Amino acid sequence: MTTTSRRTRRDAKGGRPGRGRAAHAGRRPATKRVPCIRRRLRPLDILDEEGLALIERNADEILRDVGMEFRGDPEILAIFRDAGADVEGEHVRFEPGMCRRIIQASAPREFEQHARNPANTVRLGGAHTVLCPSWGPPFVHDLDAGRRYATIDDFRRLVQIHHSIPYLHHSGGIVCEPVDVPANKRHLDMLYHHIRYSDRPFMGAFIGEERAQDAVDMAKTVFGDAFLRDNACLYAVSNTNAPLVLDASMSGSLKVYARNNQPVACTPWTLAGAMSPCTVAGTLAQVLAEALATLCLVQLVNPGAPCLMGAFASTMSMRSGAPTFGTPEAGKMVLASGQLARRIGVPLHTVGSLSASKLPDGQAGQEGAWSLLMAMLAGANFINHATGWLEGGLVTGYEKTILDADLCGKVASLFEGVDLSENGQAMDAIREVGPGAHFLGSAHTQANFLTAFFASTTCDASSWEQWSAEGALDAARRANSEWKRLLDDYEDPGLDPAVDEALQAFISRRKESMPDAEYF
Amino acid sequence: MTTTSRRTRRDAKGGRPGRGRAAHAGRRPATKRVPCIRRRLRPLDILDEEGLALIERNADEILRDVGMEFRGDPEILAIFRDAGADVEGEHVRFEPGMCRRIIQASAPREFEQHARNPANTVRLGGAHTVLCPSWGPPFVHDLDAGRRYATIDDFRRLVQIHHSIPYLHHSGGIVCEPVDVPANKRHLDMLYHHIRYSDRPFMGAFIGEERAQDAVDMAKTVFGDAFLRDNACLYAVSNTNAPLVLDASMSGSLKVYARNNQPVACTPWTLAGAMSPCTVAGTLAQVLAEALATLCLVQLVNPGAPCLMGAFASTMSMRSGAPTFGTPEAGKMVLASGQLARRIGVPLHTVGSLSASKLPDGQAGQEGAWSLLMAMLAGANFINHATGWLEGGLVTGYEKTILDADLCGKVASLFEGVDLSENGQAMDAIREVGPGAHFLGSAHTQANFLTAFFASTTCDASSWEQWSAEGALDAARRANSEWKRLLDDYEDPGLDPAVDEALQAFISRRKESMPDAEYF
Repeated sequence: MTTTSRRTRRDAKGGRPGRGRAAHAGRRPATKRVPCIRRRLRPLDILDEEGLALIERNADEILRDVGMEFRGDPEILAIFRDAGADVEGEHVRFEPGMCRRIIQASAPREFEQHARNPANTVRLGGAHTVLCPSWGPPFVHDLDAGRRYATIDDFRRLVQIHHSIPYLHHSGGIVCEPVDVPANKRHLDMLYHHIRYSDRPFMGAFIGEERAQDAVDMAKTVFGDAFLRDNACLYAVSNTNAPLVLDASMSGSLKVYARNNQPVACTPWTLAGAMSPCTVAGTLAQVLAEALATLCLVQLVNPGAPCLMGAFASTMSMRSGAPTFGTPEAGKMVLASGQLARRIGVPLHTVGSLSASKLPDGQAGQEGAWSLLMAMLAGANFINHATGWLEGGLVTGYEKTILDADLCGKVASLFEGVDLSENGQAMDAIREVGPGAHFLGSAHTQANFLTAFFASTTCDASSWEQWSAEGALDAARRANSEWKRLLDDYEDPGLDPAVDEALQAFISRRKESMPDAEYF
Repeated sequence: MTTTSRRTRRDAKGGRPGRGRAAHAGRRPATKRVPCIRRRLRPLDILDEEGLALIERNADEILRDVGMEFRGDPEILAIFRDAGADVEGEHVRFEPGMCRRIIQASAPREFEQHARNPANTVRLGGAHTVLCPSWGPPFVHDLDAGRRYATIDDFRRLVQIHHSIPYLHHSGGIVCEPVDVPANKRHLDMLYHHIRYSDRPFMGAFIGEERAQDAVDMAKTVFGDAFLRDNACLYAVSNTNAPLVLDASMSGSLKVYARNNQPVACTPWTLAGAMSPCTVAGTLAQVLAEALATLCLVQLVNPGAPCLMGAFASTMSMRSGAPTFGTPEAGKMVLASGQLARRIGVPLHTVGSLSASKLPDGQAGQEGAWSLLMAMLAGANFINHATGWLEGGLVTGYEKTILDADLCGKVASLFEGVDLSENGQAMDAIREVGPGAHFLGSAHTQANFLTAFFASTTCDASSWEQWSAEGALDAARRANSEWKRLLDDYEDPGLDPAVDEALQAFISRRKESMPDAEYF
């Protein structure tokens, strides 16, 4: 299909004179927009061979002795029984090595997820990392209106903001829950907004077979039936209900995506201390057991279907029971998960800039930087929640999104490694300048100054005097201006009117067939 | 010498009823206080063998072709001439390999710096990391009084706060510049405060031969002449004046410390784009050249004297010329510096939680976490400015200190690695709980809940409702309470009255010999 190139100003009422792209052209260095990160730093290993073997042995023992429950989905139980697993009611036990063998026989190591704009197609696996905005929050937060339930208008604005951030590679899924749309229908509107306002890859709907089928049908409208059959055009997450349960709402959608050859990230979601043991090694064994069983299921449903090992393991406060994020233990768990995924031979899906903070404050900055760096160091291939997450996932923050976007740019730059070209070595500059002089006016500096360093949009480096004269704004306040600027400058990628019409007709038809007003 | 165990409440006027140690005993898990971190994760390498060899070759070329200037110190020029360097005026050039050969012939790979309390003696080198508070800021900042010139009262309070933070290992040096004490005399007061109010290791005075000698004399009073002769009891930094200059104020103190067998961190300090080329590889070659020449000087002055390769390389804004911190390029430079130091065979000194922010906000949190993690990943052995730094080093922030202290605790916990003991594996817990239940009440959780996870003092994980009811404080506000609590709960390590008296007599004598009122 074709995409039109017309540019529409969205949110015209937010526009201020002189704040458009032209006004900024002079001071903003061109940011490199890439379809995804190609890491040139090796992952950071936290376990040695012996440690990895121990976790794998323990996962095998869990699958053999404790097993996993697959609730409310008799078809899955039959699939496992046929494959040789020990099925007793909804309880399934696996001989050591069985899941791994089945996965490794057919799961691809690497694959692409297509975007409707081919320039935005991403690669999943190997040294590639895709950064994706926050998923799931029923609330949004910004400095002007505070914390509030999210609406479909928030949803559209967030998709537009994300689309304008050069360091994100994916449009995501439930960037916030638009609670002003009935819960049973809103997946249709969310999918439409991703397709309409961004031309990056996007996620399907995860919860329930019917919604997953809607996502597949809408993607077929965009990409064409034949293309979708052979190519990944959606992305789904299947969360276990830890410990050791997969329920029908997740297995239902897993089957739809797997059968349609669309990638599924098999993601144990656990808070250590509540949903897994209060230790890193114990949680890792359980996470691996759940991931192995779920990945195995994908391959049994459709051998060769793309899948990722997911890991979303954090901790809880042992004083209050509250979930905690950006913790040392969460860091250890994601680093080890990367090693475990690479040994299975599937890409790693994990989570990014997490925080329990209520505000885009010092806690959010510290926890977010910690978490995103850990995911990158783990060699993650897909990082969900790379921007925006506050309050342990209850809130997508507008300002937090912008501060995290800077962080995404930083990690992309770090993981490019060191430029060792002749220009990078700069020996001529050192000879030219000599001892005791400065490099500001050297020919090398003049030739490189526009692209020399990563330029942050929100980190202020000015003097205290200048910063005071400019209003003494903290980082969150600066981010507040920046998301408005991104909305002002949003460039509509356009959508083929025939596709648009077909999508809208599909959505109307589907909505009419549903009962009314099931609010979240 | 003996230390008394009496406990004195300092800052009694800051005390509030019910905020003492006892009131908190119920909610704070015991924090593990260790003399320094022993890293169990390998450093993160950013350069391969070929890249390292290239940087080393370029550094050698710089030393041979461009050379380095040693200004205002004829003795040093003579030392270099005697060693075979090419000395022309104050300009010194070195044959490739000369500096490295001299360093490797005598510099120790690892050594201890002693504290007057032997339990706090730290190890420098190998897998050990020492975290040290901020150094040098003329201003302090807290949420109550804002930004202001630092005083000797601030100095004392900061030493006391640092001493109360279990995750710091060193009392540091100029934790702030007490500008209410004459500039030519204040080093005496600062040294006294470290000795009096902390029993951790501390730094000497770096700037000028005379002040360095004062530090050595005061350390002799504390440790005894004979002990100091054979043991490191101070710690000094010698900063180059990049590019490629070492001036007499630094070489003067370097000689005093080296001759007294006290460690010197030979630390090129550079902002790429101004004081070195605007590239990572160019800056690394220059940093290595400066470090090699300065380390070589230490070994020529006193073969076998302890020394560290220092690296403090950051970037500047190419728009405004302002120094920038926590940048991707700074990260790359410290990671590579770690590799270069290990190849020389000396410990790495570098810098921690840096930020250009004016406030303890989201920028400070993000930049600080980034910088400290990079230093840890580089395998640094001594991390200066691990806490408190704001405004590019112009300000020590009270709240920033507390937020960074949490971060120091986090990195210590992360770098402990994964506990793979039977208790860590927790297989009994997984068997006991089984699918679909929870771990909160399991025997394993009950047995481990006090020490299971790192407990942050400033990161709030409570619900929005509870957080709102408690005043909706951001992280900086919570940190504001915490530094006051630490001051309230400060435990005076005591000091042998004879030592105290001798120190005070020395200081009086020295001050009387100096002219008055040279303010900074």
